[in-house]
Order: sequence, then structure tokens, then C-alpha cells
Amino acid sequence: MTAFDPRSIKALVCDVFGTVVDWRASIIREGELLASAKGLNVDWAAFADAWRAGYPKAMDRVRRGELPWTRIDDLHRVILDELLLRFDLGSLNADEVDQLNRVWHRLTPWPDSVAGLQRLRSRFVVATLSNGNVSLLVDMAKHAGLPWDCILSAEIFHRYKPDLEVYRQAADMLGFAPEQVLMVAAHPSDLRAAREAGLKTAYVVRPLEYGAGRRGEDVGDDRFDVVANDFVDLAEQLMG
Amino acid sequence: MTAFDPRSIKALVCDVFGTVVDWRASIIREGELLASAKGLNVDWAAFADAWRAGYPKAMDRVRRGELPWTRIDDLHRVILDELLLRFDLGSLNADEVDQLNRVWHRLTPWPDSVAGLQRLRSRFVVATLSNGNVSLLVDMAKHAGLPWDCILSAEIFHRYKPDLEVYRQAADMLGFAPEQVLMVAAHPSDLRAAREAGLKTAYVVRPLEYGAGRRGEDVGDDRFDVVANDFVDLAEQLMG
Repeated sequence: MTAFDPRSIKALVCDVFGTVVDWRASIIREGELLASAKGLNVDWAAFADAWRAGYPKAMDRVRRGELPWTRIDDLHRVILDELLLRFDLGSLNADEVDQLNRVWHRLTPWPDSVAGLQRLRSRFVVATLSNGNVSLLVDMAKHAGLPWDCILSAEIFHRYKPDLEVYRQAADMLGFAPEQVLMVAAHPSDLRAAREAGLKTAYVVRPLEYGAGRRGEDVGDDRFDVVANDFVDLAEQLMG
Repeated sequence: MTAFDPRSIKALVCDVFGTVVDWRASIIREGELLASAKGLNVDWAAFADAWRAGYPKAMDRVRRGELPWTRIDDLHRVILDELLLRFDLGSLNADEVDQLNRVWHRLTPWPDSVAGLQRLRSRFVVATLSNGNVSLLVDMAKHAGLPWDCILSAEIFHRYKPDLEVYRQAADMLGFAPEQVLMVAAHPSDLRAAREAGLKTAYVVRPLEYGAGRRGEDVGDDRFDVVANDFVDLAEQLMG
């Protein structure tokens, strides 16, 4: 592997769920607010984990062609409808369920995300590259103040990550060669696919994504071009 | 026609060339800078007009299927290559021609655009809906400080305006019904197509788009939902 030179990078494309925003704490908090308003008793951590766990399987059905193109909003809703039974949430009315499903539009950023992205944006084109649908990502950016130059989503390409075409087409749409684009993610599987598509890779460590003391995907002895503790550290390493 | 109610609007999608940015003055200015650096003598106003005039014909070839999907950057380049001969610009080297072709990435906004869009963005989702390709629109936004929530482009849909599918799919991608989306443009033909697709319409008057004293497309006795003098006036009318 040749040495990585940050000066060769023109654009960053960022995974969002878990990398930029803390989906788990956001769902737990909104759940707890809903529970106090409605007098419910739910293990919201288990609920959040179950919701997130259902999502790769749902996407894989689209990726294998068993389902036509389906947005994450709709995949989230299918999973949620099962969870309503499992977690005894039958007392929620239709509006409350809709509102709960859209919690993914209101996920809050990790403490470093906005500051780090702002700084990165002064040098690079900074875009999302998420399996979340466009309206979800737009709502989230407005809600959280995430300063994207461009919202790129699986929805635009009608393919879900880690399909290699998503990474290739994203680089092309931004007007750059794959090796001029840095994929930023907290998930090794996302980065490995991006690397296979020719992009450079930055691993952002998010030890709390699945809750304190619980491990996410194993990095093994894999080596990425950059390893950063958070987005501020990433900016420091790329621009410092 | 039922009365237009701004409270029914959730998102604005904006034409860009001529509506948000002053393509003609921008090209003339960059051309004059190039001419003084290189000792050239060119009628840059005629050059800008000729470049812009070649663009509907080039897009129509894509729309009719005579050309596969082709980005505006590449269509601009085909037209530019003809203009280099016609305007006696053969002394430009390859880098200078590339740089000139990318002037469309650096077009400057009308004086009201940034302030008006900033204000509109506090209430609405505000996106581009341009035939310009994504990287062109991203570069322009960074260059000019245009505060888009989302970059929507013909390139995402692989169809050029005024194809009705562009407007329909843009509204859908933003998560809204067509009638919740306001198309903003300085060109009646764009607005008429948007209206046919079910969107609401705002006509922004840009009397200087083609140069002082020269008229653009005729509005005739057509009526749009909003007629605004500029983006600050549009914000005032929608939010005031």
C-alpha cells in the first residue's frame, strides 16, 4: 500500500447512522419521552437495538431483488410494526406510530460531528453517503445543523451499500476519481467495500454506538488510510 | 384556481441558472479577466449569449434520445469547442479551455439570492432543481455561499427539465406531495411544466438575465401562484 497523502483527497463521503449521529441514544431518549407522556413501560435500549438489528435483513431483501426499491423509511416502518407487538406498544395511535417511525429523521449528532464537519468543509467537499433516504437525511441535517455540501443517498442510486456501485457512482457524481474521495465510517464493512470500489478510507471509532461496553463490528487486523477518534480528530489529521 | 396558501408549502425547489445566479455577467467578467491576461479581444457578451443559446439544443438531443445521458459540463464543452473557433480563441491551451468550461461552476449569485435563501431556509426545505450536474451545483454553492438543504439535479433523475418526471420525482424524493412543493424560477416554461406536474409555482422576475434592455421568455397572460421581484421579496411574501 502506498502512503496516504491527504492532499490527494478532494471530497469526503460520510456514513451517517452511527458514524455522525448516535441513533441508539436518540431512540432511547425519544422513547422515554413518549413513555412518560403515555405512561408506558418499555426497555427502550432493547427496543432501539432490535429496530437497528432488523435493518440489514430488510435491506438485504432489496439488495437480492426480493423487494423492489424500498426506502429506509418504509423498511423502518415494517420493522417497527413487528416491534409494536413485541414491546407491547399497541396503545399508540396512528399518528404516534408515524411520529415514532420518523425518529430516524431526528437523530442527534455525536458531540464532535458538527464542529469537525464544519472544519472539514472549509477544505473538502463534504457529503453524506448513507443508506438513509434523501428526505430523512435532509430533515436530520436541518434538525442537527449538519453542514453537508451535498446529500448523497442510496436512494439516488437505487442500490444499498455495500454495493460497490454506490461508492463508484457517488465519486463520479461529485466529479472526482474514486481515489480522490475518502469514505468516512465507523463500520469496517462499509470501508472495505469503499476500498474495493477504489476510494480511500477513514475509520472513525465510535465505541459507544451499541451502548457502553458493547462491541460493534470487529476491525480485525485491517488497516485503513486514516483512523480517527472523532470528526475533530479527523479534521486535525487531514488538515492539521 | 383555488387561492394559494403559503402555509401549504413545505419545500422550495429552485431553478439556478438565471434564477439564482447571473450566468451572463459571470461569464463576461471571467472572459474579460482571461482576455486581459492573454491579450485577447473578444465580445464576451456575445460569447456568453452564444454559449447559453447552444444549451437548449444540446439538451434536447439528450431528451429525444439522440445522445445517451450527458452532463451539462460535457454539453457545455461541446458548445465551447465550437465557440473557440467562432470567437478566435485558438490560442488558449488545454488547461485554459478546461478552466473556462468550468466557469459555470463559479457563477455568482444575484445580490438578493443568498440573503433570501437563508431566510427561506429557516422555514422551508430549500433545494436546487437544476439541469446543472451535481458537482457543478456543489462547487457553485461553495463558491457563492448558497445555503441549499439539498442539491437536486436532472443528473439524479437522468432526465432534463422540462420533463415532468423531474418535478414529480424531486417532490417525492423530498418526501412531499407535488402540491406541497413550490417551484421557483425566472423562466415561465420551467414553471408551466412544474405546474403540469402538480407543483406550485413562483415566478422570480430577472429583467437583467439577458442583459439590460433585452427580454427573456414572454410570460404572456400566464398567472403563477407567486410573482416576486427577487428572493428577499419571495421570503417576505411567503413568510412575512
